[in-house]
Amino acid sequence: MNNSKDGFQWTPEHGLQHGLPTLGTIDPLKKHSATSQVYDVIVVGAGYAGLIATRDLTTTGHKVLLLEARDRIGGRTWSSNLDGYPFELGGTWIHWNQPHVYKEISRYGLQDDLENSHDLTRGINSFLVKTGGQFHKMSRAEEGQIMDKVLRKFVNVDGTFCRTTIPMPGSPSLGSSPAVQELDKLSLRDRLNQIESELSSIEKAVLEGFLAITCGAQDLTDASFVEMLRWWALNNYDMALFMEQCLTYKLRSGQSNFARHFFDEALATGRLEYRFNAVVKSINQDQADGTVTITTEDDNNNTSYHAHRVICTIPLNVLNDIEFIPALPPLKLQAANQGHVNVVNKIHVEAANSDLRSLSGTIAAPYDKLTYIFGDGTTPAGNTHLVSFGSAFTGVHLRADEDIEDTKRALQAFIGEGEGERKMDVKRIVSHDWARDRFAKGAWEWLRPGMTRKEVLEGLRERQGRVFFASADWAMLWRGFIDGGIEDGARVARDVARDLRGL
Amino acid sequence: MNNSKDGFQWTPEHGLQHGLPTLGTIDPLKKHSATSQVYDVIVVGAGYAGLIATRDLTTTGHKVLLLEARDRIGGRTWSSNLDGYPFELGGTWIHWNQPHVYKEISRYGLQDDLENSHDLTRGINSFLVKTGGQFHKMSRAEEGQIMDKVLRKFVNVDGTFCRTTIPMPGSPSLGSSPAVQELDKLSLRDRLNQIESELSSIEKAVLEGFLAITCGAQDLTDASFVEMLRWWALNNYDMALFMEQCLTYKLRSGQSNFARHFFDEALATGRLEYRFNAVVKSINQDQADGTVTITTEDDNNNTSYHAHRVICTIPLNVLNDIEFIPALPPLKLQAANQGHVNVVNKIHVEAANSDLRSLSGTIAAPYDKLTYIFGDGTTPAGNTHLVSFGSAFTGVHLRADEDIEDTKRALQAFIGEGEGERKMDVKRIVSHDWARDRFAKGAWEWLRPGMTRKEVLEGLRERQGRVFFASADWAMLWRGFIDGGIEDGARVARDVARDLRGL
Repeated sequence: MNNSKDGFQWTPEHGLQHGLPTLGTIDPLKKHSATSQVYDVIVVGAGYAGLIATRDLTTTGHKVLLLEARDRIGGRTWSSNLDGYPFELGGTWIHWNQPHVYKEISRYGLQDDLENSHDLTRGINSFLVKTGGQFHKMSRAEEGQIMDKVLRKFVNVDGTFCRTTIPMPGSPSLGSSPAVQELDKLSLRDRLNQIESELSSIEKAVLEGFLAITCGAQDLTDASFVEMLRWWALNNYDMALFMEQCLTYKLRSGQSNFARHFFDEALATGRLEYRFNAVVKSINQDQADGTVTITTEDDNNNTSYHAHRVICTIPLNVLNDIEFIPALPPLKLQAANQGHVNVVNKIHVEAANSDLRSLSGTIAAPYDKLTYIFGDGTTPAGNTHLVSFGSAFTGVHLRADEDIEDTKRALQAFIGEGEGERKMDVKRIVSHDWARDRFAKGAWEWLRPGMTRKEVLEGLRERQGRVFFASADWAMLWRGFIDGGIEDGARVARDVARDLRGL
Repeated sequence: MNNSKDGFQWTPEHGLQHGLPTLGTIDPLKKHSATSQVYDVIVVGAGYAGLIATRDLTTTGHKVLLLEARDRIGGRTWSSNLDGYPFELGGTWIHWNQPHVYKEISRYGLQDDLENSHDLTRGINSFLVKTGGQFHKMSRAEEGQIMDKVLRKFVNVDGTFCRTTIPMPGSPSLGSSPAVQELDKLSLRDRLNQIESELSSIEKAVLEGFLAITCGAQDLTDASFVEMLRWWALNNYDMALFMEQCLTYKLRSGQSNFARHFFDEALATGRLEYRFNAVVKSINQDQADGTVTITTEDDNNNTSYHAHRVICTIPLNVLNDIEFIPALPPLKLQAANQGHVNVVNKIHVEAANSDLRSLSGTIAAPYDKLTYIFGDGTTPAGNTHLVSFGSAFTGVHLRADEDIEDTKRALQAFIGEGEGERKMDVKRIVSHDWARDRFAKGAWEWLRPGMTRKEVLEGLRERQGRVFFASADWAMLWRGFIDGGIEDGARVARDVARDLRGL
């Protein structure tokens, strides 16, 4: 298990250290033949979309080159094993109701690797809401009730809690319905303004805090309301299921172990070549011989590779950092210029305090730098692992690696003054700054108002000549989730295979 | 679209006709080279388990022979298009929370082929419960409430409505928990006896009727209680979701169209050979050259085929009709001798009465030959399609193809005397008698008490030498569903591919 340059941790013993060990690093970092050869397919990006495309194409007989700008697989989903415990730096929770990812859990026999990371039996088994410096202590049942109440009010655009408006969240024609097109104009802030007179001050604070870390936008006026309606519909219009499907079940062995199964299966075919630390600069279809040429910068050299087809899994927010020849079509170009808005912070803390194991807490208006926390595991050392999310709102956005004391204060703020069971005795802080990650420029996708229409999403999914585009950012079902990356990578792999057969 | 010998229909014009047209018939019925050749894999059975195994193996470079006893693909799931409308003779409803089947819906781009078959806007929009000759008319909301109430009482073995007992319904180690092992001894009748004093007479009737057609047993003492707990957990401990995931969304184009996608993709690889009407008599591993020989009866001849590996997707209830050499291991043999207990009837009716489109009805104790019905579509002719299920209880089991007038009486009984809006003006009856189908001997799987323990299910999944076993009947997640067939076929295909590579 080698270190990736990605992520960082802080411990009292060693202070801040950049880079984290992960099963997602591949040794050696490159394995390919002469660059003059023409591959069947070059896959750009080794996140789940790229990994499943690579696996599906190599196992069905295609010669594939996988190019990855980072030094590891997994993209926006990866785990670091620290003292025998996997910290999930990006995408984490999955569920058997998420079809594309669970199908792969089945394939790799990892059903019993899935565990409920919550433990509601110990210590501060409460939901602590802090608003205006005051703590409101609620039972976990009351947490469920207030969340359910405010969300139901928020999504009830049709008197049926969104069931009429979005009856089937995975329908590709969803974004063409008149009701959805109308709602597509609204931001989360617009919708909050519509209903805020019906909310108590604490309800409003809890809702706004939830929205802040769910969309991860710097301003709720930038974040699409329809995206929240889709999440709600995907979770069967039910807040309890929302929490179960999106924040409860994770892999004991970590996401990078799961991702390795895809990579290793592809490699075992003998048809996979790859190169890490290869930053794609251009994708050029303007070749006389009908191939595509990709030029990368790696080890300070420019190298060109050639293929009959290319699968580009570059996230929406960095798509425009690559030169496409010919230029991207207008719909893709515009969507990439707009980008998605999620730059949320995710901070792990390992604390020597088992009283915190069952804690759930939120800091609502006025916001602190971290706004949501819950116990997510017990480390082999017997410490409590908590995961927290920080609002990206302007003025509070945390830079954990620049000021660790500020981060520790923000963590302590969830439980008030640090005495006795309320002391956050920090043994480790682990994170990855996705907002400043040059290969992601953001966390999970959250589109802007105006971007959930059918033609925008179809435009993002559409091939351009011999270049195909796959990403969780424009998936049909669990868009923005691990499931969506796997869905879209598999879709495009199949399209490419058919195209190469001349179908 | 050719006729299959399977199924039957009755119309006023033509009376009873055996055999139905279906997209599931393949033309020609055989396509294979000399029987002396040794295939990589022979797949026995072209239901979903066999189809996905065939597809996954052919697309990854293996030479496969598919042998099917029937004249069509699909096994216990197939549709017949009659005057432009698909009637589903077997498995019907699917949902995006069923991972293995929905992954394939994504693969074949059929997301918008999925539709909600219910329509609660027209005519008799009620739930009619008939007990002791009396009708009780309830609103659809009251139907939801009574079903929810009785089911929650039925499954509440732990004070948490089964959440503690079955926290993760897809866990392969589920059947090894002490709580589940204890409950495994109970039949549905045992559990009903435990709670019946808490039920009103109508509640008891509704619950017993629901259990009767869900397990399809001739006697509730034969049917496993844990199977119902698993269904409940799979449906997130929620009766409304139970109805949505199990009885609401179906494919506009019919299941046989979906099944064709698997077959056609396999065929397009050029690595699939196949033979229909080939009834497997024996699977013999006792060969000096390490291959497996399968002997079939087809066109009154015995033919032998040879392969390095065999995937047997024969359903549990007919597994013992095949001679295995060496004999099946004890666990498989015993489970096959016991069999599962579901011999429910499923009868479609097309009625010239649009008032019935929103009907839902049940006939509870004393039971009639059909006990549950609901509107499931509108045919191109403008008629109403209703689907009904008949209890298999001894003494009421319907043989629709033997006495159509009896069937019509049983249908009419759902709505009382046939006057005005209550007249069941039958234009067509369509069905398939799964109980007497020699290649299925039953409908969807419902195990007996004592059969849901981990070792029994693992025994059923286990390979025996070079023969691998796949079926929805012992799947891990949606056991007994279309999803389960796809899950288990894919599992075994991967095991076989690894085995052939010597891994």
